[in-house]
Amino acid sequence: MASHRPLPPGSRIGILGGGQLGRMLTVAASRLGHRVSIYSDGDENPAFDVAADATRGAYDDRAGLEAFADGLDVITYEFENVPVEAAAWLTERVPVYPKPGVLRVAQDRLAEKTFISERGIGVAPFANVESIEDVRGAGTAVGAPAILKTRRMGYDGKGQVPVSAASDIEAAWVALHRQPCVLEARIGFEAELSVLVVRGQDGATRTYDCPRNTHAGGILRTSTVPSGLPEPIETHAKRMATDIASALDYVGVLGVEFFCLPDAHGQANAADRLLVNEIAPRVHNSGHWTSDACACDQFENHIRAVCGWPLGPTDRDRDVEMRNLIGDDVAMWDQLAAEENVRVHLYGKRDARPGRKMGHVNTLT
Amino acid sequence: MASHRPLPPGSRIGILGGGQLGRMLTVAASRLGHRVSIYSDGDENPAFDVAADATRGAYDDRAGLEAFADGLDVITYEFENVPVEAAAWLTERVPVYPKPGVLRVAQDRLAEKTFISERGIGVAPFANVESIEDVRGAGTAVGAPAILKTRRMGYDGKGQVPVSAASDIEAAWVALHRQPCVLEARIGFEAELSVLVVRGQDGATRTYDCPRNTHAGGILRTSTVPSGLPEPIETHAKRMATDIASALDYVGVLGVEFFCLPDAHGQANAADRLLVNEIAPRVHNSGHWTSDACACDQFENHIRAVCGWPLGPTDRDRDVEMRNLIGDDVAMWDQLAAEENVRVHLYGKRDARPGRKMGHVNTLT
Repeated sequence: MASHRPLPPGSRIGILGGGQLGRMLTVAASRLGHRVSIYSDGDENPAFDVAADATRGAYDDRAGLEAFADGLDVITYEFENVPVEAAAWLTERVPVYPKPGVLRVAQDRLAEKTFISERGIGVAPFANVESIEDVRGAGTAVGAPAILKTRRMGYDGKGQVPVSAASDIEAAWVALHRQPCVLEARIGFEAELSVLVVRGQDGATRTYDCPRNTHAGGILRTSTVPSGLPEPIETHAKRMATDIASALDYVGVLGVEFFCLPDAHGQANAADRLLVNEIAPRVHNSGHWTSDACACDQFENHIRAVCGWPLGPTDRDRDVEMRNLIGDDVAMWDQLAAEENVRVHLYGKRDARPGRKMGHVNTLT
Repeated sequence: MASHRPLPPGSRIGILGGGQLGRMLTVAASRLGHRVSIYSDGDENPAFDVAADATRGAYDDRAGLEAFADGLDVITYEFENVPVEAAAWLTERVPVYPKPGVLRVAQDRLAEKTFISERGIGVAPFANVESIEDVRGAGTAVGAPAILKTRRMGYDGKGQVPVSAASDIEAAWVALHRQPCVLEARIGFEAELSVLVVRGQDGATRTYDCPRNTHAGGILRTSTVPSGLPEPIETHAKRMATDIASALDYVGVLGVEFFCLPDAHGQANAADRLLVNEIAPRVHNSGHWTSDACACDQFENHIRAVCGWPLGPTDRDRDVEMRNLIGDDVAMWDQLAAEENVRVHLYGKRDARPGRKMGHVNTLT
């Protein structure tokens, strides 16, 4: 069916980024017989410990990137803020999946929201803010309460300022150093959920079951499957995520986060209750439960997709709650390790700084 | 309960041996947040690709071993032919589990069979052969058909010569270069099975379900669970394996291979139908099915044990057949990867030489 040729075992896979997602991708790739090289500009790189080769370098260091790319069969990435220029430059030498064009959409909240809403998929009301005139226009168009977010480089709640009144938008923008921003209406939601969709080089797609997610301080805390949400909500969310992946000509695992709006009168259409919060062009924290509840987890499916292999099954074998171990949470490791139904995943990071993801546990139920 | 202190995440674990067992142990250790260093004298070392540190060196290179041991918190091994002297020397610097005394038993078929039979556990009739007088005595004591095996360094059917008549023993011994051997009676068995038992530093033990194994050319081909054997057979086999582990003061996963004798008249006691074939002081090929059918596989449980962690659950969640990919079998990787119920595990070895274990697949049923 597909015209591409899958990369045989023993292929060399490059990963941009050295964090825990790269670490788990590396393990999945090695299980399929591949050999992984990591390139990262980070200070601490948990992926380095499990990779065959590792390079620390800047993403604008062309000599460093060239040495990294030498002999690789395919390149992928574990974070969405890979500089587009670096990814595009690498693409001239080695296939890069997901394709760098995806990064242009995912790295800019304005481009992302515009792309999604143009597909007829709901997003919270938003407005571009890059000038004092925009501040006033956004106040009218979006109003308050709202959140002013930098268009670029935000993650885990960073680069965001809540706004209670339209008159506060300017101060928020100043607080964000007058960077290009989007103002997003603050949505009263009933639940947060996400979809992990994997799309192959042949355009085949599969979705995992939707986890219901909770956040605190902008950081994901738990992902629970089944979500307990009505089946039509999950069905529509999966359909929307799949549509986004196909529209992006995406290859690999894509995370799509949704708000599910309340339905006070029990009459809303399921599709109308779903707003996309954001997309992540990579394996996603809310998919970590797949490692212990699915035969083929998100990491293996991402590697399968970028290597042109057939996608693996996404069926869920059991109920599970994933909980992140953030900062000092990891000090409980010995109690967690003693729980019969808890699977412990630790990233090998040295300092348990506040807000830092140190590991996660999957509680099987 | 235990007086030891478990090694915290971030500990440094050394593994002697760089093969696929070391590779899978390394991945399990990294999932628990540990950092792995490998030491191997092998030509090709699949474990090197996933380890934080790797050294190629001889086991009698004290400077090399010393550099390897520096900063490690615990050392374990992935093959039973680690020179006892090296393991004992390392023990003076870093805890080594399983303790080197176990190697003395497991490396010598005569010591092994003597140890097991002294525990009241059945083994096939055997006799020591290290002189021409022994050849004659063995012919009388054991008879034929039989197999003459070198006492040391045999694996995957190497170092073995079948003997059809007592008068052939001498020629077999000459063919094995007059090394110290044991003559083992060839047993007519109904099935081969094995037990993977894990024992913690506190003496706690757990067993996985018994796989039924098939071999060809001396190499394991398949391991199937459930075994289909009568429940008392499995119960007795587990009890015997646990008894052996405890008698050895073993720490880690121990593989114990059994023959199950036929019961023509349906009257034999289950214990009498079981003979131990051999023990392997390490994770074992017949336990590879645990990776896809148990929440905590043999690799994680071995790491838990050697790190003084509580043992993980050994319950089996599903039926499974493990099949080794030997030599050219691995050329089928693309068909296997397309099977929905097949989980592919490849070792990243370059040359698919005949008889070489290139990977395995777990077929979930």
